[in-house]
Amino acid sequence: MRCVERKAKMGIDLIELKPIGFVKTTAIGKEVRKKGIISKIILRSDMTKALEGIDEFSHVFILFWMHETSTEERRTVKTHPRGRRNLPLLGVFATRTPLRPNPIGLTLVELLKVDGNVLTVRNLDAFDGTPVLDIKPFDNWDMTDDAQVPQWWKNLEADRTN
Amino acid sequence: MRCVERKAKMGIDLIELKPIGFVKTTAIGKEVRKKGIISKIILRSDMTKALEGIDEFSHVFILFWMHETSTEERRTVKTHPRGRRNLPLLGVFATRTPLRPNPIGLTLVELLKVDGNVLTVRNLDAFDGTPVLDIKPFDNWDMTDDAQVPQWWKNLEADRTN
Repeated sequence: MRCVERKAKMGIDLIELKPIGFVKTTAIGKEVRKKGIISKIILRSDMTKALEGIDEFSHVFILFWMHETSTEERRTVKTHPRGRRNLPLLGVFATRTPLRPNPIGLTLVELLKVDGNVLTVRNLDAFDGTPVLDIKPFDNWDMTDDAQVPQWWKNLEADRTN
Repeated sequence: MRCVERKAKMGIDLIELKPIGFVKTTAIGKEVRKKGIISKIILRSDMTKALEGIDEFSHVFILFWMHETSTEERRTVKTHPRGRRNLPLLGVFATRTPLRPNPIGLTLVELLKVDGNVLTVRNLDAFDGTPVLDIKPFDNWDMTDDAQVPQWWKNLEADRTN
């Protein structure tokens, strides 16, 4: 067991992923963050069968690759949330910035329709052409009712929804 | 714009990730799924500053690489949930199986402590030595109160918690 463990700890220094499909949307730039926005996910045709049964879930997580983050930007360690200089300079893991070592996006969406290899979803804040990495059914084990967040975060949220 | 879009759609066929750290736990096998289990995440030392401010969040998502899934297993398209033959054969995206094209694990954990490059968390169902890919603060935009799931899923859940 110790050998296996050591191998896992020392040996895995590069992981390779292949997109399962891509996002299709007519929204441009910040429009993708608009509440209620509807997008499509076009899966590779060899992935169609992997969707079987997904239509029984109302909500799924989409994991996607934020491909607009450059190699240079992936080295970012600290940032001002949403680029706002009046907010504290924080570690990237304390924010949802795309400027992070592995820029994987994570969004909970409403699953509206499944048609062959095409999903129609509501509230996916990803740009057109974004590579999709995974789709996972959502259940209540993925949430908590007593989450605490910092004050700066609450202020940003209030600002966004007003 | 069309060129950029085409490049995104056609060009990104391989994505490279580098772990930001590893899971450390004494739990073995199915023990990692035990409710309330406490694990540590040991980040690379160059990632320590990227944690600044994270201690103000009570809950975070951990994205990890399910490295025990083999290349062969990543080709799985359909599976019986939790290997139970009495449940329907479903597409992998309709389940949370690790047998998926990009075996990225996603778990909501309670953040108990941050000490330098070491996080102590509750409810991380990942094995010792699992490479960690990302850490994201949790907020209520990541949840929904009206999620619908299939009956087979409810039965499995009831089975798990009883």
